Amino acid sequence: MSGNTLGLLFAVTTFGESHGPAIGCVIDGCPPGMALSEADIQPDLDRRRPGTSRHVTQRQEADQVEILSGVFEGKTTGTPIALLIRNTDQRSKDYGNILNTFRPGHADYTYWRKYGLRDPRGGGRSSARLTAPIVAAGAVAKKWLAAQYGVTVRACMTQLGEVPIPFQTWDAVHQNPFFAPNADIVPELEAYMDALRKSGDSVGARIMVAASGVPAGWGEPLYDKLDADIAHALMGLNAVKGVEIGAGFASVAQKGTQHGDELTPQGFTSNNAGGVLGGISTGQDVVASIAIKPTSSIRLPRQSVDLHNAPTTVETHGRHDPCVGIRAAPIAEALVAIILIDHALRHRAQCGDVQFDVPPIAGT
Amino acid sequence: MSGNTLGLLFAVTTFGESHGPAIGCVIDGCPPGMALSEADIQPDLDRRRPGTSRHVTQRQEADQVEILSGVFEGKTTGTPIALLIRNTDQRSKDYGNILNTFRPGHADYTYWRKYGLRDPRGGGRSSARLTAPIVAAGAVAKKWLAAQYGVTVRACMTQLGEVPIPFQTWDAVHQNPFFAPNADIVPELEAYMDALRKSGDSVGARIMVAASGVPAGWGEPLYDKLDADIAHALMGLNAVKGVEIGAGFASVAQKGTQHGDELTPQGFTSNNAGGVLGGISTGQDVVASIAIKPTSSIRLPRQSVDLHNAPTTVETHGRHDPCVGIRAAPIAEALVAIILIDHALRHRAQCGDVQFDVPPIAGT
Amino acid sequence: MSGNTLGLLFAVTTFGESHGPAIGCVIDGCPPGMALSEADIQPDLDRRRPGTSRHVTQRQEADQVEILSGVFEGKTTGTPIALLIRNTDQRSKDYGNILNTFRPGHADYTYWRKYGLRDPRGGGRSSARLTAPIVAAGAVAKKWLAAQYGVTVRACMTQLGEVPIPFQTWDAVHQNPFFAPNADIVPELEAYMDALRKSGDSVGARIMVAASGVPAGWGEPLYDKLDADIAHALMGLNAVKGVEIGAGFASVAQKGTQHGDELTPQGFTSNNAGGVLGGISTGQDVVASIAIKPTSSIRLPRQSVDLHNAPTTVETHGRHDPCVGIRAAPIAEALVAIILIDHALRHRAQCGDVQFDVPPIAGT
Amino acid sequence: MSGNTLGLLFAVTTFGESHGPAIGCVIDGCPPGMALSEADIQPDLDRRRPGTSRHVTQRQEADQVEILSGVFEGKTTGTPIALLIRNTDQRSKDYGNILNTFRPGHADYTYWRKYGLRDPRGGGRSSARLTAPIVAAGAVAKKWLAAQYGVTVRACMTQLGEVPIPFQTWDAVHQNPFFAPNADIVPELEAYMDALRKSGDSVGARIMVAASGVPAGWGEPLYDKLDADIAHALMGLNAVKGVEIGAGFASVAQKGTQHGDELTPQGFTSNNAGGVLGGISTGQDVVASIAIKPTSSIRLPRQSVDLHNAPTTVETHGRHDPCVGIRAAPIAEALVAIILIDHALRHRAQCGDVQFDVPPIAGT
Repeated sequence: MSGNTLGLLFAVTTFGESHGPAIGCVIDGCPPGMALSEADIQPDLDRRRPGTSRHVTQRQEADQVEILSGVFEGKTTGTPIALLIRNTDQRSKDYGNILNTFRPGHADYTYWRKYGLRDPRGGGRSSARLTAPIVAAGAVAKKWLAAQYGVTVRACMTQLGEVPIPFQTWDAVHQNPFFAPNADIVPELEAYMDALRKSGDSVGARIMVAASGVPAGWGEPLYDKLDADIAHALMGLNAVKGVEIGAGFASVAQKGTQHGDELTPQGFTSNNAGGVLGGISTGQDVVASIAIKPTSSIRLPRQSVDLHNAPTTVETHGRHDPCVGIRAAPIAEALVAIILIDHALRHRAQCGDVQFDVPPIAGT
Repeated sequence: MSGNTLGLLFAVTTFGESHGPAIGCVIDGCPPGMALSEADIQPDLDRRRPGTSRHVTQRQEADQVEILSGVFEGKTTGTPIALLIRNTDQRSKDYGNILNTFRPGHADYTYWRKYGLRDPRGGGRSSARLTAPIVAAGAVAKKWLAAQYGVTVRACMTQLGEVPIPFQTWDAVHQNPFFAPNADIVPELEAYMDALRKSGDSVGARIMVAASGVPAGWGEPLYDKLDADIAHALMGLNAVKGVEIGAGFASVAQKGTQHGDELTPQGFTSNNAGGVLGGISTGQDVVASIAIKPTSSIRLPRQSVDLHNAPTTVETHGRHDPCVGIRAAPIAEALVAIILIDHALRHRAQCGDVQFDVPPIAGT
Repeated sequence: MSGNTLGLLFAVTTFGESHGPAIGCVIDGCPPGMALSEADIQPDLDRRRPGTSRHVTQRQEADQVEILSGVFEGKTTGTPIALLIRNTDQRSKDYGNILNTFRPGHADYTYWRKYGLRDPRGGGRSSARLTAPIVAAGAVAKKWLAAQYGVTVRACMTQLGEVPIPFQTWDAVHQNPFFAPNADIVPELEAYMDALRKSGDSVGARIMVAASGVPAGWGEPLYDKLDADIAHALMGLNAVKGVEIGAGFASVAQKGTQHGDELTPQGFTSNNAGGVLGGISTGQDVVASIAIKPTSSIRLPRQSVDLHNAPTTVETHGRHDPCVGIRAAPIAEALVAIILIDHALRHRAQCGDVQFDVPPIAGT
Repeated sequence: MSGNTLGLLFAVTTFGESHGPAIGCVIDGCPPGMALSEADIQPDLDRRRPGTSRHVTQRQEADQVEILSGVFEGKTTGTPIALLIRNTDQRSKDYGNILNTFRPGHADYTYWRKYGLRDPRGGGRSSARLTAPIVAAGAVAKKWLAAQYGVTVRACMTQLGEVPIPFQTWDAVHQNPFFAPNADIVPELEAYMDALRKSGDSVGARIMVAASGVPAGWGEPLYDKLDADIAHALMGLNAVKGVEIGAGFASVAQKGTQHGDELTPQGFTSNNAGGVLGGISTGQDVVASIAIKPTSSIRLPRQSVDLHNAPTTVETHGRHDPCVGIRAAPIAEALVAIILIDHALRHRAQCGDVQFDVPPIAGT
């Protein structure tokens, strides 16, 4: 594999650029016999879609997915599932001013250094648009995980810029444009974003993903640990600068007596581990958090250089998310779901579908 | 690959358990013609070795490495390099009391759930002992990176429990048992650890790794990004609960104007990116930090269950590190070095050894 | 990877079924900066296309390829190249009679046993139609190999049923519908095929592929040998039952004095090795031959069973090649080209672009 | 993976050179809970071992295997199984004369061209000695396949030089040094080999492998087909120049009516397919044949060049097999067994342990 594939046994290879004719992916390894149609995938794409509130980019993309293969009479056949999304709103003129300069904080510069050329239209392959095929593949993974093992994968925003968002309930997440698990804080977030947008600046966010119902025993002891693969997938998402499992960086200042989750006949008493011990799931919720950096493309002037290394100033106009983290929750869900199904299949390969459930400790 | 391999083109497969006859690894893909002997590897093993100060486990292991293959007349041949380390100090009786119980915070429980059996001697494969072969493989990677591209990979401790360790200088790192980049703080760290050891508890740590001299252009655009692969490797290390690249979680509260590193003809003005943009190296230092949880094996009593799910109490006596983070710096270096050489080779495969160096922006 | 990918660094993942909406592939790892357009790919697709003579299936497919990604302003960008071919001629009624029976010699039966369901329309994924995306990807590989190293990959038919086709010249190959390297024998082949078609039966063929200009040093010592990877790719082609490298099965009865190609300052004196020794290219032509079985779908009645294991008779009407080998030459070329570029990149990764050319032995 | 690994989920990575300190392998992915000790592996190593008759090399190697990891209290733990075999009989002086020349038909030349250096002692990594770790890994695979699915993998010689060996019975195979399935022909083979040895020349052989009891449904539709992976593994074996599945090259001249195996309620009526249709097992015996070239190292003088491309003559004295095919049967078994377990695990991953057995067609 040459870098553009996620997963070993549920292998998702994506393709496409922001302003090319189409984006999409091929899913290789999906189990056969699962009912699947575009209607299973479209809702997640719609949750990620741009243009749904004033707080995100106003680019209009229907993100209509087409299943090209791997499904016959409404069921997966076990052969590769190709998903296609045509790009429809490609206002390339928005990006004309960046052809010969490098936007600070952006992949423009590194693509140039790596390949000696780049597709500058909308960021090319480094555009957040490329998360759409991942969301589509994640919808397939989520459906199988739910049907086969009752696994649910959910994500929410837990911090917007300087504003922490205390977790209240998953139900709130779907009722505001921020994926905030807290209805009370929404007016503050609205005001915060309105001021930010007016300022021309951008801001970061923190997203939490939790998978419930994951059986104990998924993961590998070393390197391809469940948490390591989750970290790989999440750090591979545009703009992510940090990944935590369970207590994460708070573990540094914890004592062993505080951090180590005790076991009782009724289950674990806490979940600092984030549902993973020694790289393998414990049966508790698998919990990860990510740090998303502020959008690099902003209206305010920034120092840069051009292709000849002459100093220049870059202001990025056009349709950008002032906080890319706002649309990140469905993407983080999809990434974790892809890793989970991959490890479900890996586990099934090596250990069969046996679950060694003595003792039958309940998840928390 | 079935989980126990790190790297695609510089592929390190490790084997062994804490108290089995031997541990080791096979390195597949090392370039030919590099001078290599045990003397290149042993110093890094000695830095990681237990028993070198009163603050770490008193298990005595010579960790003597033997090169079994892949080297002829002192030069790498391009064929697999097998490295063998015999286990010599296997006091299995230390661990007898944990045969039928699960130590909180430990992989005992998950291995049991996954495999239906486990090697309980010293943690089996989940032991920190398994980091020795990684350190050995990392020494090979470091030698090649230095010779071929002038890359240096260094790590240090930046926090011990609640005590932050301000960075002063790399030179200090080798002059104290904590890998602290700050000589002044060493007495405080000594006192902190002495008290901790006396208490029977354990504590976490934060480690920072930095690679200097990495050329621009290493990495892949999506999924197998340089930073994602570093996150995968570091999160795969025992006890790690979080990984940051560059500004990491601080990015959440940053504004775009603050985070995005500006470019000038003389180079970048800052390095919030941690040397990676869009998954590809910028030419600046590649900087990562990890959170290491407190050691799970502690002398203090902890609630747990036995194999029949009956409640029990676990106190882990024996020879354990009260802070596994103390010996983590050389391991973190090794992991990052393995990922870097892997991406050096991947880059060379796709793009040749060309470096598209217009503009010739200096690293910072 | 889950089975539908060919190549490690030039990784081609195909998708699609014979009668689904589309077929295609994603090429991951193509070097950047190569001029590429549909016009580079279409000619090879046209060579493989059905309906071009009376000796092949009369299905009419334009096989029009569309580049969806990975190319910007006419040059490859280094990111995945997605190629799409819409299916246009899907007369599914032709296949209605096989919904509940298994055609002898066909994958119907094994797909059913593996997946518990199958796409019966035109053989679904097991259709020879799926070789079109491989031919498309092979055209990309061939262009790069020619531009970068002057490598040429050519294939021809060397036996049609019982009729051996003595090699005369590569020039003849493009001037007859059989890809026969011999103009004189074409009338005999025409007559042979006309009689066969009339009989309702089918027949096998033997194809030879030769790659000229391959530098010495491509391949790996064990397992992923150049010849082993070629064997993997060619045996993975529909209907192939045997693969030979160089002297192939004739080696069995050879003596060492006869088989071992001697070296002289002017080069090798023979090429029984088929251009590969110890898994690595010698600099001579890389030569492989394949055995293609007779088409399984024939008009004559054959014993079979239905889904309830009751005996039945199958006659396959519809539009089938009486000898699938006739269109196999361009496909075999493509497969070998994909393996060659993959090993070119792998070699570049581990050994740089250095060629250790002492002694400068000429290829043959 | 960088070339020295066989298998994806049952991944065998070998290491070592003919005259280095040791050879061995790491098996990653073996299912847990299987009883395993050296006694399960040694018998197959002994079957492959040199020095057991006058017809094979007189090198004396005990080939004593040591299990270094992955087994606890006599059972596999699911973690990597490392197997070590120390080299004991390293008469390097035998090879002194080939330091500066290239033996015709040998990998000396290509290793030099690839790596710029080589380990000339006994052929280094290209030595047939490296098949010992494969045989060891194959013994593990065979044990699991037999225990889990009742699969048996057997190989025999079907041609020695010009002498075809008609198949009589598997029982005969273990009763002669040629692995011939025919007791009557043994005197002829003895005489043939005695004359050959006297002449100083070498000869090829043909080996047939058959796996019985393979369930229907193992394999992948495209590229990683069961037969393609078998071809990859077998062509990767030293000296192999051809691989056939089922009817193999005889298919070329067959008609469809003759080749296509008919189905009846009692099972298939023939097995031209060799137990694989569309890349997936049918439930019949999986049958493959290989062509092994004559040994390259012979006593008779051969033209070659030295490192400066000056003409020279090479005569290889020392202890060589005059027919490497004689010891190839256990190796071919091992390779096929490794591919079969790998596909057993891959099948279990994607499809569960379900077998869709309507109709319940019996194997042959």
